[in-house]
Amino acid sequence: MRLITFINDDREQIGVRQGDRVIPVSSLSSDLPGSIRQLLAEDCLGELARKCADFTGDSIAIADIDYRPLIPVPGKVICIGRNYAAHAAEGGAVAPTFPEVFFRGTTSLTAHEGVIVRPQCSEMLDFEGEFAFVIGKSCRHATESKALDYVAGYTLFNDATIRNYQKFSSQWTIGKNFDSTGAFGPELVTADELPEGMTGLSLTTRLNGQLMQDGQIDDLIFPVRSLVAILSECMTLEPGDVIVTGTPAGVGFARKPPIWMKAGDTVEVTVDGLGTLINFVQDEVQ
Amino acid sequence: MRLITFINDDREQIGVRQGDRVIPVSSLSSDLPGSIRQLLAEDCLGELARKCADFTGDSIAIADIDYRPLIPVPGKVICIGRNYAAHAAEGGAVAPTFPEVFFRGTTSLTAHEGVIVRPQCSEMLDFEGEFAFVIGKSCRHATESKALDYVAGYTLFNDATIRNYQKFSSQWTIGKNFDSTGAFGPELVTADELPEGMTGLSLTTRLNGQLMQDGQIDDLIFPVRSLVAILSECMTLEPGDVIVTGTPAGVGFARKPPIWMKAGDTVEVTVDGLGTLINFVQDEVQ
Repeated sequence: MRLITFINDDREQIGVRQGDRVIPVSSLSSDLPGSIRQLLAEDCLGELARKCADFTGDSIAIADIDYRPLIPVPGKVICIGRNYAAHAAEGGAVAPTFPEVFFRGTTSLTAHEGVIVRPQCSEMLDFEGEFAFVIGKSCRHATESKALDYVAGYTLFNDATIRNYQKFSSQWTIGKNFDSTGAFGPELVTADELPEGMTGLSLTTRLNGQLMQDGQIDDLIFPVRSLVAILSECMTLEPGDVIVTGTPAGVGFARKPPIWMKAGDTVEVTVDGLGTLINFVQDEVQ
Repeated sequence: MRLITFINDDREQIGVRQGDRVIPVSSLSSDLPGSIRQLLAEDCLGELARKCADFTGDSIAIADIDYRPLIPVPGKVICIGRNYAAHAAEGGAVAPTFPEVFFRGTTSLTAHEGVIVRPQCSEMLDFEGEFAFVIGKSCRHATESKALDYVAGYTLFNDATIRNYQKFSSQWTIGKNFDSTGAFGPELVTADELPEGMTGLSLTTRLNGQLMQDGQIDDLIFPVRSLVAILSECMTLEPGDVIVTGTPAGVGFARKPPIWMKAGDTVEVTVDGLGTLINFVQDEVQ
């Protein structure tokens, strides 16, 4: 099942995408929640799938919707840095022995087909293609062997970064939290439609059509199972929490000369089975 | 005005504390929002103050309520590290030239008179007494001269930290996000009741009655005005967002021998005008 959050007729709602059509969840049942986060919290994926199978009403053409960030207001957006050894190395760092964790706030999120904003204060806007997973069931102290039971599904993320601000202090958080830099979507693909823990897949990032990143998810230093176990040793992971798993090598700042995203650019992140997350770069307007 | 979030009769609500009594906001008007975050977003502080002045109904004894984290679900909890030079120095670091920023998630928050949890996986639970400010009006690109216009008020925070996890990687976020470690309250004191930007006040932390931290807020490297300006250059600050300003010298890990909090301890953070934030330490129960 492929879930999206979108705006149609000025109203934010959620839906199930099938081909080039979207079934609004509100058309399936007035009892189903209106957000992906609440749908997960109330454990409604099974009911939703059954209702979709029986659905004979009107759907919406995908061309008629505007995407919203996949989960517009998650409880936590937990991002992992340097999770591919080749990316750590291109930044001059050794591979970490424990996950490098930072959070994003909701003000930093942007939608599929939405704008990534280059702020007035910096030209150093860099792409980071990643995949993310979404927690389906609350967990604390999950073991690696049970970890995937808590993962509802997967999606794409562009963890666009203001590089100089990331390095103005020892903590990266501010460079990762500029408004409208964290692209999130297009859709939550439920875990049953993908290989366990996303093994065997590759991830690419293209800037204006040119291949910039081409990584193997199997190269993750801390794969999905490990992240669930390590994070949940420390904190409760809640339904709708998002874990953004890190970017492979090939980012702009490590190139000679560096490549920064600029107004007019199109950036695409792709993983087989998750589709492509497309964003357009614009300058901040004040 | 002094706002609190509390539970009474099994219901989470907000109220105005006056002496040892609390006026429930729901008793003042059914039109007023039921959360501090929404009260700020709808710009209702003035109306609330007027209704409090006219109130002649029943209030609740402060002894009959249970506090909740001051804002249980803020949009962002933005924490500043090493914001007092003496604290940076006791940790072996130089004073930062740009704020060190990390975020806390809501799962890490705990209430005034609530429990700070020492997790199973570490004994290195340290206190960090701080004051925090709460954003009242949405802002981006606030100048220092206008910065305080966006601050609704002030409160206390104990940014309790699992020190070894904080240092397992270069990013501190995970050591700052264990469940029930960020004590937040007791009350939002509106800015009109305090010196501008909290200047001239001192902050103390006591562990089992013994003075551990005794800092001057005027020693902040990045005071309130600067933090609003620098943060809002990067991201939109929204009503109810919390900025936790950093801890002065005297924390446990920097002592010889180090002092860690343990089950049975009581920790108190005090600033004149903000009251005292009291918490009790317990071991995690699994």
